[in-house]
Amino acid sequence: MANQYDDVALIKGHTFTGHTLHHSDMDLDRIYMDYNATTPLEPEVIQVISEALQDAWGNPSSNYIAGVKAKTIITQSRENVARMVGGKAEDIIFTSGGTEANNLVLHTAVEHFRRNGRAEEQDDGRTNGSNGLPHIITSNVEHDSVKLAAEHLQRDGKADVTYVPVSKVTARVEVEDIIAAVRPNTCLISIMLANNETGVIMPVQEICQKIKCLNKQHHRLRILLHTDAAQALGKIRVDACELGVDYLTIVGHKFYAPRIGALYVNSPGTKTPLYPMLFGGGQERNFRPGTENTPMIAGLGKAAELVTTNLLHYESHMRSIKLYLEERLQAVFKDRIHFNSRYPGSDNLPNTCNVSILGPTLQGWRVLSNCNRLLASVGAACHSDSGNRPSHILLNCGVPTEVAANALRLSVGRGTSKADVDAAVEDLRDTVQLLEKTD
Amino acid sequence: MANQYDDVALIKGHTFTGHTLHHSDMDLDRIYMDYNATTPLEPEVIQVISEALQDAWGNPSSNYIAGVKAKTIITQSRENVARMVGGKAEDIIFTSGGTEANNLVLHTAVEHFRRNGRAEEQDDGRTNGSNGLPHIITSNVEHDSVKLAAEHLQRDGKADVTYVPVSKVTARVEVEDIIAAVRPNTCLISIMLANNETGVIMPVQEICQKIKCLNKQHHRLRILLHTDAAQALGKIRVDACELGVDYLTIVGHKFYAPRIGALYVNSPGTKTPLYPMLFGGGQERNFRPGTENTPMIAGLGKAAELVTTNLLHYESHMRSIKLYLEERLQAVFKDRIHFNSRYPGSDNLPNTCNVSILGPTLQGWRVLSNCNRLLASVGAACHSDSGNRPSHILLNCGVPTEVAANALRLSVGRGTSKADVDAAVEDLRDTVQLLEKTD
Repeated sequence: MANQYDDVALIKGHTFTGHTLHHSDMDLDRIYMDYNATTPLEPEVIQVISEALQDAWGNPSSNYIAGVKAKTIITQSRENVARMVGGKAEDIIFTSGGTEANNLVLHTAVEHFRRNGRAEEQDDGRTNGSNGLPHIITSNVEHDSVKLAAEHLQRDGKADVTYVPVSKVTARVEVEDIIAAVRPNTCLISIMLANNETGVIMPVQEICQKIKCLNKQHHRLRILLHTDAAQALGKIRVDACELGVDYLTIVGHKFYAPRIGALYVNSPGTKTPLYPMLFGGGQERNFRPGTENTPMIAGLGKAAELVTTNLLHYESHMRSIKLYLEERLQAVFKDRIHFNSRYPGSDNLPNTCNVSILGPTLQGWRVLSNCNRLLASVGAACHSDSGNRPSHILLNCGVPTEVAANALRLSVGRGTSKADVDAAVEDLRDTVQLLEKTD
Repeated sequence: MANQYDDVALIKGHTFTGHTLHHSDMDLDRIYMDYNATTPLEPEVIQVISEALQDAWGNPSSNYIAGVKAKTIITQSRENVARMVGGKAEDIIFTSGGTEANNLVLHTAVEHFRRNGRAEEQDDGRTNGSNGLPHIITSNVEHDSVKLAAEHLQRDGKADVTYVPVSKVTARVEVEDIIAAVRPNTCLISIMLANNETGVIMPVQEICQKIKCLNKQHHRLRILLHTDAAQALGKIRVDACELGVDYLTIVGHKFYAPRIGALYVNSPGTKTPLYPMLFGGGQERNFRPGTENTPMIAGLGKAAELVTTNLLHYESHMRSIKLYLEERLQAVFKDRIHFNSRYPGSDNLPNTCNVSILGPTLQGWRVLSNCNRLLASVGAACHSDSGNRPSHILLNCGVPTEVAANALRLSVGRGTSKADVDAAVEDLRDTVQLLEKTD
């Protein structure tokens, strides 16, 4: 939305270009509250990436010292990432990011169904209900890398998909609705651990418990369980075993790590199927070939280690800052404020405040593009070119259209201070005054 | 091969671990001649990556200043990468690496055939020969990311594949052999620009010219043309338009760039089909979604810029060093030397010297694991766990088994000096003496 950016430039009285803006400008001048879109890298993470760029450039597949050094870094990183999610090192498959990890899970489920159906038919000479299409269950508030991958499989005639709507009261997908959607051919349930816009935490553990009971009762292909934990990691405790999932998506740039990701798979190839989408040089035990991105993997490992060590601190800091933010917004805007991240009975990420300031001229995009200091978004970053339409996620959560249109997703980070909150709220107050006067 | 590494450690009299070895140790002590496996990063490349890690961490999809900055970097990088291969900025799709780029091409060709066949049948109510399987032509010396991707399609019943053998005289795939392999259903020809083990340059331009004539003559789905230029970029001039390819694979870590890649596609989605393998947030114009790896993309762009500016210098330096290496090897080992990178009538990469020192105890793995200073490989790094079998690439090029078993792939780089060559050849001489005495 070029004009949004132009508005900002206009108000600030000068033009920014990517190459003249320095980090310090952003720190001092702007208040970044879009940590759900992406996070900066922790200094220690930048440090290990820089070291690896310098010193660990050898091909990890090479047998000599330079390769061994790179391989050692990758091994340590794998252990750190595994520890963060309560898995074993062998459960971690490094990927280029969350999009690839999510796509890989959907691909695997369909492929597993296709192969297993075939094998069973050959074995006992009868059909077992797996002649039809595999069936995937997901929610209607998933990230596009699950939603569009599922739609593609559906459009291609490779899978049936049920998009279970979240409750318009709780904004959670309800366990009983998931169970009710199960069919004989259901091969995968993919539910995000926490929503990126509302921050609402989904009942993944309960779903897994119920489905595991179902899996035991029926003589059929077991239903595989996936959660996209992109927005949860680094914010709340995430333990793949406790959750009971088969797959869990890990996205570096949401927890101060670089732009790669990983997929947790509970014993890939043995306990849990994993079918590669790419074929090549055998890296990642053939599950995900391609010469390893050693520096980025090193950074992911360091960031995971920081999460394992400091999660409670991060969580409590973000929660208290978010509470302060909500209090300040309420104090300033009084009954004109509506929290799109608060739903009765639902838990919420400690850092996510989705809020609408009610008023006919206060559409989210309009407010943000007139703010002087606040950097935030109206929804998922990858929907930033969707024009000024209200977020379909919020509409699906039961937020009325005119409220959703005004939504601001304010997501705080490890370093957000009360002073930042004060400045952001002041900025919002001034902007609202300006917009209402202008109008 | 753990024992190979152990041998090295033993001879050097101490144990290396990844974390106690420093870059300087490797520079001072070791002579790296495995630039076809991977390259270090140029200091300027590390610099732009580091800057981007610090300053351009914003989500490129965000509309505010932090996102705009990241987006600007990506745009500039795309232009630089395009310039390196003689394409337009819009022709460049960033990928996680060469493996993904190669897989994406094969996927696209099969998908294009499937859709186009269907569309044509629907249009004119007749079958047009596209009911059968799509047919892919490649060579028998391709990288695993083409070879295994093709084998997977074949095994899955999704494509027929012809692996045209290279000539055992020239080690090149011959144009007439490719033409002879064309069938009515041929949808893709994928031939590497230069082989990673022999350095032999393939007649891609001639193949493209002939196939384009064929494409014009016949009323059928045009045959798409792909070259994997992983080993050629940064070593010889590469111009996608001159070559006449539809797709060209770009791999950063072979030209002093980071571990990502790109696919050149001649006007993707308009002149040339491109079907995504991944679905998600719409990045890379939906051809390759996933939040962009800004720092790595910045590094790829800088490295591409360096290639565009300095290619002639790089090429002539590497060529003179390789010639010197070949002279020295010949002088020291006399008629016991066999060059597996020299074939009558074939051109060769300026940096690749594949050589066997003849003798019953001089298998490549044995020689290298006893060298004190030389770091090289016996073939592709991703085959490093294939035990001590001779390279199938060399066997396919007509190298006798006992010669192939002794092969050493020595690939020099931008910084390799004559002193490095002297030291490496001395190391080889000492090692050969040792092995022949021990035996």
